This record gives sequence, structure tokens and C-alpha cells, in this order.
Amino acid sequence: MTTTQTHETEITVDPDVPLVRITREFDAPPEKVFRAHTDPALLVQWLGPRGVEMKVDHFDCRTGGSYRYVHTSGGEEYGFHGSFHEVRPSEVIVQTFTFEGVPDGVALERLVLEDLGEGRTRLTATSLVDTFEGRDAFVASGMEYGVREGYERLDELLAR
Amino acid sequence: MTTTQTHETEITVDPDVPLVRITREFDAPPEKVFRAHTDPALLVQWLGPRGVEMKVDHFDCRTGGSYRYVHTSGGEEYGFHGSFHEVRPSEVIVQTFTFEGVPDGVALERLVLEDLGEGRTRLTATSLVDTFEGRDAFVASGMEYGVREGYERLDELLAR
Repeated sequence: MTTTQTHETEITVDPDVPLVRITREFDAPPEKVFRAHTDPALLVQWLGPRGVEMKVDHFDCRTGGSYRYVHTSGGEEYGFHGSFHEVRPSEVIVQTFTFEGVPDGVALERLVLEDLGEGRTRLTATSLVDTFEGRDAFVASGMEYGVREGYERLDELLAR
Repeated sequence: MTTTQTHETEITVDPDVPLVRITREFDAPPEKVFRAHTDPALLVQWLGPRGVEMKVDHFDCRTGGSYRYVHTSGGEEYGFHGSFHEVRPSEVIVQTFTFEGVPDGVALERLVLEDLGEGRTRLTATSLVDTFEGRDAFVASGMEYGVREGYERLDELLAR
């Protein structure tokens, strides 16, 4: 049995712009954290809360690529899609993100991985939308719970 | 000789979020304005101020596609690239946009075409970034001049 240390996930809303910022450390090097975000076979093992089944429609994680996946929970399907604006291996992913339940909504997201040395990584993920109402509704929707539990699952995957 | 009526281009900065909004009417139906934005052979004839030479590297204007083009002016090259998050013919284009002179900067842009009837279209283009400083530097950079002159060139193209 693997014992996994769980780090704290910080989720903060920016006071000046309609942006959410998530920071989290992982006990794995950036290369490994990056691969867990870009290889669909790994992504389906951790993205989202426990009990959610994830199916990848397509996931072409390179600059200029695009993606779509579906979460199934309690018989309901939730689709998500977007484009990869820029992908720099083990460093940065800039992408768009739409939850298909709100088809005209779109967020601009940036994931940054920082090498802390000794096989550790700090992840910073920001999500920018065009209204404070939209940002606050997103945070109030329970994303916090899904993000925290997803990262616990990622800890477990990285420890294998 | 074709006489072209030139409409006013309104460029406003949002007071609450780091967004620029451009509105402009055209004496052409949405289908024609859309095609001028998506067909690279037409785009190079109007995008940017007069005297700029535009070369399209690639321009795959469909949901999930990407683009890159280069403006040449006074011997200097200015590259731009991004991804198309969503393209709905004659209605909406949502895309990312990076000026390669500021490689880590990225804007989330939305173009909306509204059919005003009688062969007229209202275009609304918004550009969202993550800081007010970045937004205000973009506006101060002279984009206003390039946008107005580009739309005058587009009027001429649509009138042909």
C-alpha cells in the first residue's frame, strides 16, 4: 500500500479581474505532472471528483490542437471542450475551456508548472472569464470540491 | 469608381473587466462579412492598416483549428497566432490571439455578427486579457488606428 501525502489546494478569486487562481504542490517532478495532464490514458484516472466516469472524445494536447471529453455521474453526461493555444512541455499549457451546459461561456486557462527541486512541483492554474458574475457562479457551482478531490486522485496516480 | 460609405468604428474599454469592445456596421450581409474574416485570400486584403503587407502562414478557421500570420511594415515583421475555440458560420468566432512581440500575452476574442437586415451587419468584437495594464497598453499601442483603417479597407473590399 502506498501512503500518499496530500498537499493543500489553494483556490482564490482575484479581487481586480474575473479570474480564479488555483495553486497546489505535488511530490513528483514537472515532467510527470505534465504527462498526467496531457496523456488521455492518465487524465481519465484523476480529472474530476471520485465516482465520475470520464471519456475522452479527442485530446490533441499540442499548440494548435483541441480537446473534448465527457464526465458521466449519476446517469448525467457533462461535456467539456476547448483548444490548446500553447503547450510547452513540462512548463505551460494555455487553453480555452467551455462547459457545454453553458455553451456560450468560455474561459481562458493557463497552467504553469514550477520545478521546486527534489522531485517536487508547484502547479498554478488560472481561469479567466469576462464577468465577475460568471466567475463567482463557477466557484459557487462546487468546482472547489471537484478540484480538491481530483488533485487527491492525482497524488495517488503520481505515487504509483 | 465605387463610392464607399464609411461607418464609425467605436472602440471602448470596459470599466469593470480588462476588455476592449469594438463595434462597427458594414453595408454587407453577415455571410459576406464572415467570409472576409475567414477566407485568407480576402483577409490579407484588409486586415491591418494600409501599407502593411500580410502573409498567412496557416489559417484554419473552424472550431478546433488554428492560425498564424505575419504583418510586414517598414522592413519589420510582426507575427500573430492563436486557436479557434468556436466558429459558427456568419455568426460567431471565438479565438485566442497572441502578438509574438509579447509571447506570453494572450487575449480571448469574440467576434459577433448581427444581421441588421437590408444587407447590413453589426460587428461586435471583444478582446479580454488578464490585467488592466495589459489591456490599456494594447489600446495605447495604436491598435485603434490600425482597426479603423483596416475596417475602411474592409468597406472597400465588401463594395467590390
